[in-house]
Amino acid sequence: MNKEKKIIKNDSVGLVKTQEFTFESLKLQSGEKFGPVTLAYETYGFLNPEKTNAILIVHALSGDAHAAGVHENQNNPGWWNAFIGPGKAFDTEKYFIICSNILGGCKGSTGPASINPRTAKPYALDFPLISINDIVNAQKRLIQHLGIEKLLSVVGGSMGGQQVLSWLVNYPNNLRSAVPIATTIKNSPQQIAFNEVGRQSIMADAHWKSGNYYEGPSPSRGLAVARMIGHITYMSDKSMAEKFGRTKKVVAEPFKFTADFEVEGYLRYCGDNFVKRFDANSYLYITKAMDNFDASGGRPLQKVLQGILAKVLVISFKSDWLYPAYQSKEIVKACKLAGVQTTYCEIDSTYGHDAFLLEVEEESHLIRHFLKKVFYAYEVTGDYGA
Amino acid sequence: MNKEKKIIKNDSVGLVKTQEFTFESLKLQSGEKFGPVTLAYETYGFLNPEKTNAILIVHALSGDAHAAGVHENQNNPGWWNAFIGPGKAFDTEKYFIICSNILGGCKGSTGPASINPRTAKPYALDFPLISINDIVNAQKRLIQHLGIEKLLSVVGGSMGGQQVLSWLVNYPNNLRSAVPIATTIKNSPQQIAFNEVGRQSIMADAHWKSGNYYEGPSPSRGLAVARMIGHITYMSDKSMAEKFGRTKKVVAEPFKFTADFEVEGYLRYCGDNFVKRFDANSYLYITKAMDNFDASGGRPLQKVLQGILAKVLVISFKSDWLYPAYQSKEIVKACKLAGVQTTYCEIDSTYGHDAFLLEVEEESHLIRHFLKKVFYAYEVTGDYGA
Repeated sequence: MNKEKKIIKNDSVGLVKTQEFTFESLKLQSGEKFGPVTLAYETYGFLNPEKTNAILIVHALSGDAHAAGVHENQNNPGWWNAFIGPGKAFDTEKYFIICSNILGGCKGSTGPASINPRTAKPYALDFPLISINDIVNAQKRLIQHLGIEKLLSVVGGSMGGQQVLSWLVNYPNNLRSAVPIATTIKNSPQQIAFNEVGRQSIMADAHWKSGNYYEGPSPSRGLAVARMIGHITYMSDKSMAEKFGRTKKVVAEPFKFTADFEVEGYLRYCGDNFVKRFDANSYLYITKAMDNFDASGGRPLQKVLQGILAKVLVISFKSDWLYPAYQSKEIVKACKLAGVQTTYCEIDSTYGHDAFLLEVEEESHLIRHFLKKVFYAYEVTGDYGA
Repeated sequence: MNKEKKIIKNDSVGLVKTQEFTFESLKLQSGEKFGPVTLAYETYGFLNPEKTNAILIVHALSGDAHAAGVHENQNNPGWWNAFIGPGKAFDTEKYFIICSNILGGCKGSTGPASINPRTAKPYALDFPLISINDIVNAQKRLIQHLGIEKLLSVVGGSMGGQQVLSWLVNYPNNLRSAVPIATTIKNSPQQIAFNEVGRQSIMADAHWKSGNYYEGPSPSRGLAVARMIGHITYMSDKSMAEKFGRTKKVVAEPFKFTADFEVEGYLRYCGDNFVKRFDANSYLYITKAMDNFDASGGRPLQKVLQGILAKVLVISFKSDWLYPAYQSKEIVKACKLAGVQTTYCEIDSTYGHDAFLLEVEEESHLIRHFLKKVFYAYEVTGDYGA
């Protein structure tokens, strides 16, 4: 029996395979024309003949196209596996789910680690500065390629939520609903600061070499520290206290700055693990795109959203101090002022920012009912929301 | 006219000089006997003949003995200058103020950068692991050396507050009052996590070389990143938003990961500045001492404080999320349960943890009146509080 069989349950989408879509070029927000662009993506469920049941799921900073199911011979359930499958929030018996690795990423889509066809070497810092809108424009190309004119919904948390807002602002006629989760119209100075320290940590690593590390050792220690900082901000004071307390590890070595406390061991483990699967330059480019993002391009968001017929569900989490609830409320306020039909829920979670990955029950409930309502509204009335 | 004359105002203690006190050895909490130990210290005001007006001020992670006034030919007011001087909270016309650089520090006191007399080289990691109690035990020796049996008060914020609690628990008969500010009985996993990431950043720097960097370049980039992380935690989301907003710097260079936002430039500036004045190994030892500190040694603090006659003033700040008010309330609760006379004030500040350095007016008011009450109680009744 194959390894993956054991973990495929009835509510799993089962074995999945990452696919690729390549297109010639993309005009970036900076004006530059960049290409070719490959996007790695996965799909779950089936597109109905009317092509009205497609949902785009967009991932956060360290995510990828593998949102659900497992790959052949691997025990690797996707990052939102608890939410996607038969009978789950994103019910694959009803909906056609798409998830792609973002432009600039390092999980199969074109990013700084990809080979630059002009030099036959990795782009490194020759990769152009990209924006959240560029990431979304690339996704739009994939959606067109799949023959979908209008998405039932675009859903994502954290940086995924920024992409959702970009979709809503830039392609209001190509979606019938949007679910931005634990996100913000624009990063606060504190959020920028945390990202900046992560970037500094990478660039401080002697192996970084101005980004040209692909032929030698990678700046893994700097990247690990960046990831550790991230992990602290993804949890809450309370969830850390509940998970670790001040439990001390049994210290085997006499070295003085060993990980005495469980929380230290956990962070080191997370950091070390991350560097095996993530490219440091991608980390720089993606965090910079997050920091530069401003959903409304400096204008009041309520003006930009004026006349949009898509329905919006905004979700935040009480203990999330990285993307605090007040930022979600700003989205809700702008939507309401613009007359957009908006539902808001602040989930009472202690998990911190990570809650968008972990609060399966309540979040699933909200998403399931919201999607049903949007989908059903179309089924009955034929109203595409435009 | 000398440079320092210009900035010496009527409420300044004026020109000051750092002094040194060396003693042969100290028995550490680990059991190890360590010496010789030098403490750099400064004093302001005059000890009265009864020796009842001495206040020990203890500094935080990056502090030093220079708490007030200026040094000759330098424009360098001490770190708590706004609080110490004629007519100020710590009124040098009434009180005799002492401040020393901690054991393990790098501002004149014996620390990892000091020369190990046995090898004629810097200790580096041969420096012993020290605890907050060790730091306080060394201070106790200095106080004895100055001929003071009983302090009017011990006062400090952040890691200084941990030292105040250590004084209260270990030398209850040698102080008449204690003022722990923005501090905790023991660091939470989140606090440990932030310190650990700072340590990891230093140890990740190729120049760190297991601490043996004193003959070559120092791990300044790793230390700078550690400091940047610190700075984020010292401010609040709100104070950052007020100070920086999303203001972008005018970018002179085309480099992609330059500091676009003011907050990024500020952090880089703070990081770069810090490495000029701080030793990376000291950072490791001191943060480790903070993390290992548990004021009551694992027992309930109210038991440990039983029968203590010293009066306590606990101060916290509303927007301080690094040492949140709930931790100060735990101190207050333990004191009250132990029957210790305790006053608590949570100051409504937006400055975050930095508030203990910045909320001059309200904090001065609280401290001034508290000290007066404690001092006056003695003056009238001769009650030493023991």
